[in-house]
Amino acid sequence: MKHWALMGVATLALASCTTVADQPSDMMMKAPVEAMILEAARSGTQGYDIVEGLTTEIGQRLAGTEAEARARDWTVAKFKEIGLQNVRVEPFTISGWERGVETASIVSPFPQEMLLTALGGSVATPAGGVTAEIAYFPTFEDLESAPMDSLDGKIVFISGRMDKAPNGAGYGPANRKRRSGASESAKRGAAAVVIRSVGTDSHRFPHTGQMRYADGLPKIPIAALSAPDADQLERILERGQAVTMALNIQPRAVGDRPSGNVIGEIVGTERPEEIVLISGHLDSWDLGTGAIDDGAGIGISAGAAQILIEAGLKPKRTIRVVAYGAEEVGLLGGFAYRDLHKDDLINHVLATESDFGSKPAYEVQLGVTEGAEVIESVADMLGLPMSDQPTNGGPDIGPIAALGVPTMRFQQDGTDYFDLHHTPDDTLDKIDPDDIAENVAAFALMAWLAANADTDFRADDPQAGN
Amino acid sequence: MKHWALMGVATLALASCTTVADQPSDMMMKAPVEAMILEAARSGTQGYDIVEGLTTEIGQRLAGTEAEARARDWTVAKFKEIGLQNVRVEPFTISGWERGVETASIVSPFPQEMLLTALGGSVATPAGGVTAEIAYFPTFEDLESAPMDSLDGKIVFISGRMDKAPNGAGYGPANRKRRSGASESAKRGAAAVVIRSVGTDSHRFPHTGQMRYADGLPKIPIAALSAPDADQLERILERGQAVTMALNIQPRAVGDRPSGNVIGEIVGTERPEEIVLISGHLDSWDLGTGAIDDGAGIGISAGAAQILIEAGLKPKRTIRVVAYGAEEVGLLGGFAYRDLHKDDLINHVLATESDFGSKPAYEVQLGVTEGAEVIESVADMLGLPMSDQPTNGGPDIGPIAALGVPTMRFQQDGTDYFDLHHTPDDTLDKIDPDDIAENVAAFALMAWLAANADTDFRADDPQAGN
Ligand SMILES: [Zn+2]
Ligand SMILES: [Zn+2]
Ligand SMILES: [Zn+2]
Ligand SMILES: [Zn+2]
Repeated sequence: MKHWALMGVATLALASCTTVADQPSDMMMKAPVEAMILEAARSGTQGYDIVEGLTTEIGQRLAGTEAEARARDWTVAKFKEIGLQNVRVEPFTISGWERGVETASIVSPFPQEMLLTALGGSVATPAGGVTAEIAYFPTFEDLESAPMDSLDGKIVFISGRMDKAPNGAGYGPANRKRRSGASESAKRGAAAVVIRSVGTDSHRFPHTGQMRYADGLPKIPIAALSAPDADQLERILERGQAVTMALNIQPRAVGDRPSGNVIGEIVGTERPEEIVLISGHLDSWDLGTGAIDDGAGIGISAGAAQILIEAGLKPKRTIRVVAYGAEEVGLLGGFAYRDLHKDDLINHVLATESDFGSKPAYEVQLGVTEGAEVIESVADMLGLPMSDQPTNGGPDIGPIAALGVPTMRFQQDGTDYFDLHHTPDDTLDKIDPDDIAENVAAFALMAWLAANADTDFRADDPQAGN
Repeated sequence: MKHWALMGVATLALASCTTVADQPSDMMMKAPVEAMILEAARSGTQGYDIVEGLTTEIGQRLAGTEAEARARDWTVAKFKEIGLQNVRVEPFTISGWERGVETASIVSPFPQEMLLTALGGSVATPAGGVTAEIAYFPTFEDLESAPMDSLDGKIVFISGRMDKAPNGAGYGPANRKRRSGASESAKRGAAAVVIRSVGTDSHRFPHTGQMRYADGLPKIPIAALSAPDADQLERILERGQAVTMALNIQPRAVGDRPSGNVIGEIVGTERPEEIVLISGHLDSWDLGTGAIDDGAGIGISAGAAQILIEAGLKPKRTIRVVAYGAEEVGLLGGFAYRDLHKDDLINHVLATESDFGSKPAYEVQLGVTEGAEVIESVADMLGLPMSDQPTNGGPDIGPIAALGVPTMRFQQDGTDYFDLHHTPDDTLDKIDPDDIAENVAAFALMAWLAANADTDFRADDPQAGN
């Protein structure tokens, strides 16, 4: 709880009360249940226990793999165990992709091995790899301004660093090379691409993540070097000699594979058809155990529901917990949910997702047309300011937000998130149980108040955003 | 320089003087050359540049490999470039060992891959690996007290954490499992061993390092799990079910291989036969680029000599820089030096080695019979206290210290050294140029004063320590 000690003194004082009648302050009189929720979440380990179980008993959960399928089974069992109702899987099919051998070395002038990893969706090099001269671009923008046909047969190296920021503002710009580096290079004749990992650490972990091929261009392999390897390659290039790299990555497309969203509910007592949706994504990349991305989001959303169930609280609206599948490979769970629930989106009153690690929020963002005051009161009770930035509720919420579903988001502190993001080092030891408990408190309080609010969050025409 | 800002105000004030006559303080009058040395080293990048070059242009330098041979060539050229005299390689032969495939996974009850690395000198598993139930020992001492024949065919897992300390005091106790875990397990019938890495970090890097087989016992394979993987395995074991692991490591002994010590000197003007020896080790493990272990030691010792050469200083005794080969696999360079120089050790006046990373010293240790006052004056000028612990001068100095060669050691701050030690993450980005400059200053000053001291450091009978 230490993170919050300085921010929410009034709330904490409130939260430490166990009986309401003894302390008849105005705030207590208004919010005894809310205080109970916060106290239960902050003193509990519900969220942490869920992440611990998922990451320990399943480990990595790459979309479309048998491990993701086991994670769905695990989540169904866990949702039932904590007392959620209507627990089910909503299956969908994806195009599977799996990692293979991945090695790289500098052949000349300074022979040595380098650590890298294929980006998700990348094609393989020819069997045995490709050996070619490096064409170096300090930034993606430098590559974009390179002449056409100037990179014939070369291995392109795109560097460029990502800045740290609480809101991850550096991710979008840094990610351009990951998303589009292959096709921008292929367009100019390159044979393959290596990028400096999209990340903010200086450890020897490459960061994976999904890439895209543009239509009508050759598909060439692309992989990410760890930051120290990218530094090393830059130093080697600075010596001024031609640098030859041997690159061998053998990932492969494995055809149609099953994925699915796992859903559980606390069915509303008065307006059961109306949905307050809280969520995270169940899949992870294959390198780590997906503790911060996004075991944390599963723990936070399911843990929040567990707090309400354990307190015997019955919301008026239905609180729905969704553990999305196949987020990492293109928000496929979010799109599948949108498609399956198309005719029902009008009943979605509010939706949010936690997918930014385990650190507590530092502000609250709105994506609603009405009812902002309910969310503002949640922020107030948590000691959090409102953000001046709008939200679409999170990656898997985006598709339904685009069709008019109201959203909000707890903007978690992501300053260090990209140190671990999509690396082998995304493991449970990186999560502070107190941090995740604070997020559970926020989600539980928000879900409870939104599910019971007399006001609505939807515009008169909920499809207005479409 | 920041580390030193609080500790050596007088020294720094002194060091910032560029002309002596202008500021006739007592200290200045006594030590104009010493002040020049400190100033030149602290404001220079000699040591850092050497580590940068070695780690960039060679990379890893596993003992006995072609990379270590290239590192010797590189060092010979560098020693000549900085103006050392009598630059030469003293070759010796070692038994080579190289890493192969290394994979591990939990087969049941929770299938998942684990990250580990073979310990140096380990035999391979049978081709295709070994699959067996885990026998868990929280500490090496628990294994030692296990009954004989109680581990038939099992894969032993030895955990046990290493404590952080500036002097690395936790390393010896934690290292028992690495050194002796294989034979203690083999003695009891085990098929293979995995240990929690000997290290103090919580990143997904296994730490390698040399192991030993006891005579007369079966040789079984041994590998180290990263700390997060060891945590994970402990959590899996805590669930109480039998845990089966599949382990496949394919390192191999590759027969006789060349290694060697690279030597260069500043020949003394008055007593050239008398040697002040400063050193580091040139070889590294194969996983990282050996920046802190021990590129730093090469940079510190050779950089210190470079400072003296660039200042045009001519010591009375010879200052000898040694870049030992094959330290990691059993101090083989140190023993080879002892054997080759057996009849000449009586002329070794003082010897030291830097092999504890790149952080500055926090105290100075003595291993001399006479002349402590010279080393105490060095410590005083650096603002460092004397240690109450004796030294043998460093790992490669140990063999000649045992034969009576006087030693001293700058006890560098190793609090974080074992976060990186013997991992892929031992790379140049972990070195602060200011830190290494301070070490260069200390080595240069010590070498200069020891080489010019009228007093001696040797006992009347230099073989007394034998
Ligand atoms: Zn995510
Ligand atoms: Zn992700
Ligand atoms: Zn060392
Ligand atoms: Zn070492």
